[in-house]
Amino acid sequence: MNLPFNQRLESACREKSNSLCIGLDINPDQFPEEADRSLAGMEAFGKDVIEATIEFCPVYKPNVAFFERFGSKGYELLEKLVDHIAGRAIVIADAKRGDIGNTSRQYAKAILETMGCDAITLSPYMGRDAIEPFIMNSEKGVFVLALTSNPGAGDLQMLETNSGRVYEHIIKMTLELNTNENAGLVVGATQAEFLEEIRAISPGLPWLIPGVGTQGGNLENALRISNQNGVGIVNISRGILYAGNGSLEAVVHAAQKYTHQIRELLWTPVNC
Amino acid sequence: MNLPFNQRLESACREKSNSLCIGLDINPDQFPEEADRSLAGMEAFGKDVIEATIEFCPVYKPNVAFFERFGSKGYELLEKLVDHIAGRAIVIADAKRGDIGNTSRQYAKAILETMGCDAITLSPYMGRDAIEPFIMNSEKGVFVLALTSNPGAGDLQMLETNSGRVYEHIIKMTLELNTNENAGLVVGATQAEFLEEIRAISPGLPWLIPGVGTQGGNLENALRISNQNGVGIVNISRGILYAGNGSLEAVVHAAQKYTHQIRELLWTPVNC
Repeated sequence: MNLPFNQRLESACREKSNSLCIGLDINPDQFPEEADRSLAGMEAFGKDVIEATIEFCPVYKPNVAFFERFGSKGYELLEKLVDHIAGRAIVIADAKRGDIGNTSRQYAKAILETMGCDAITLSPYMGRDAIEPFIMNSEKGVFVLALTSNPGAGDLQMLETNSGRVYEHIIKMTLELNTNENAGLVVGATQAEFLEEIRAISPGLPWLIPGVGTQGGNLENALRISNQNGVGIVNISRGILYAGNGSLEAVVHAAQKYTHQIRELLWTPVNC
Repeated sequence: MNLPFNQRLESACREKSNSLCIGLDINPDQFPEEADRSLAGMEAFGKDVIEATIEFCPVYKPNVAFFERFGSKGYELLEKLVDHIAGRAIVIADAKRGDIGNTSRQYAKAILETMGCDAITLSPYMGRDAIEPFIMNSEKGVFVLALTSNPGAGDLQMLETNSGRVYEHIIKMTLELNTNENAGLVVGATQAEFLEEIRAISPGLPWLIPGVGTQGGNLENALRISNQNGVGIVNISRGILYAGNGSLEAVVHAAQKYTHQIRELLWTPVNC
C-alpha cells in the first residue's frame, strides 16, 4: 500500500515542483560573528532554515558528521531536526555507511528506524551484503556512492577493470539491487564529462547530486542529464547555509534562487 | 615527543604480550534470557567485560553501529565506555567512515577528538582526501579497508584492473599515506589465500584482522602471516561477547582462551 522510496521521492519533488536538496551541514565555525554557536544556537538555526524553506524544498540531507562532531549531544540535535521535519519533506541521512551484513543491519536500524530518516547514503567498498540490509523495507531508500565529486574520486572509482571502470561495476550492482524500487546513486556534478554515460547505464535510478555550488559543478548540466531517465536531485549545502552575510534572509534568498533556477530548467516546461 | 600511533599499538601489544582485540559489538538481543537488556544493562555488561579483560587485552574495538542503533542515548553509552577504558588500552572505533575532505575533518573531530578514540576504521571508496584528515595527528591512527572478511568483498575489492586488483591499489595508497606512521589496513582472516601476498606488499603497516571466530577465519594463519612484517591484531567480537552461556565468566574464559592461543603462537617463542 505504501509507495516504494523512489516513487515517494519523485512525488515529493513533483508536489513542490522542485528538485532541490538542502544539505544540513550545520557548522557553527561558519556562523556569522554575532551568532550563537552553542548547540542551542545550532538547533535554532537548523529549525529556522527548515521552517523558512520547507514550503518549497522537497528534500533535506543532514550530514551526520557535522552532528557527531559534538558527540552524543550533537547526535541528539540531529534527531531533533529530523523529528522537526516530521514527514513534511524527504530526509536523506548523509552517513556513507557500509559494513558486513550483521553490522549494516544495526546501521539500518539506527538511521532508518530509530532516527526515522527516509534514506541513507552508502559506501559500496564492502559489496552487496553491506547494502542489502538497508533496502529490505521498500519505503526506505539508499543512495550508493558511484562517482563522487571530490578530487580523490579518481583514486579508486575511475580505475579501469577488464569490464569497465570501478564505478560502472557499482552502478550495475545497484541496478540489480533495485528490485524494491528503493536504490539510487550518488553522482557528483563535478564529473561533467561522465554524466551522460552514467545516465545511460543507470535507467530509472534516482541520483543524489553533490558538487554544485562550493565544489564548482554545473547545476544546469547535472539537472538536465539526471532527469532524462529518472529523478535527479541537486544538493546544495554551504552555498545555501552560509550564503551572503549568513542571515536567515540570505539563506532563504539563496534557497529561493536555486529553486528558481531549477524550476526554470526542469519544472516550468513540464508543468506550464 | 609522543609516539606515532603504529608504535603505540606495538607497545600496547608488547606490554600485555597479546595481539587480541575485543570487538565491543554489544547487542542486547544476544544477551542471555535473564539479562538486563536496557542501556543501563548494556553499560554494566560493557564495563564488566572491560574490567575483567583489560589486564591482558591491549585493544578494544567498539562497533559504532551497535550503539547508534539506540540513537543519541546509545551514542552516549559508547562515549562512556571509551571514557571507562581511559587510556588503559588502545581503542579503535569501528566506524568505516570516509567522505569528502571537509566532512572527513568533522568525522575526525567526532571520533578522535570529541570521543577520544585512538584510531578509526575507514572506507576508501572516496580516495585519498577522504583519509587525509584522519592522519594529520600522528598519535591517532587509521585502519583502511583493504580486503574484508565478508562475502561481498569480491564485488569490488577483487576486481582486476590494468595494474593489479582494486584492493592492491588501496594498499599502495595507504603505504603512501603512512608518512606519519599512523596508517594500517583491515584484512579479513577469511581471505586465507591472499594473506601472504598482502603482507608482502604492505611492509610495516599494522593489520586489524576481523573474520576469526563466527566468520570462520583461521587465527593461526592470520597471526603468523600478519606479524611477519608489522603488527597484526586479531579481532574477536561475537566469539567472546556471546561465548558459552553468555555469563561474564564465559566471556572472560573465551578471551583468555584466545589470549592463550595468541601467546602460544606469537609471544612465548619471542619472550621466553
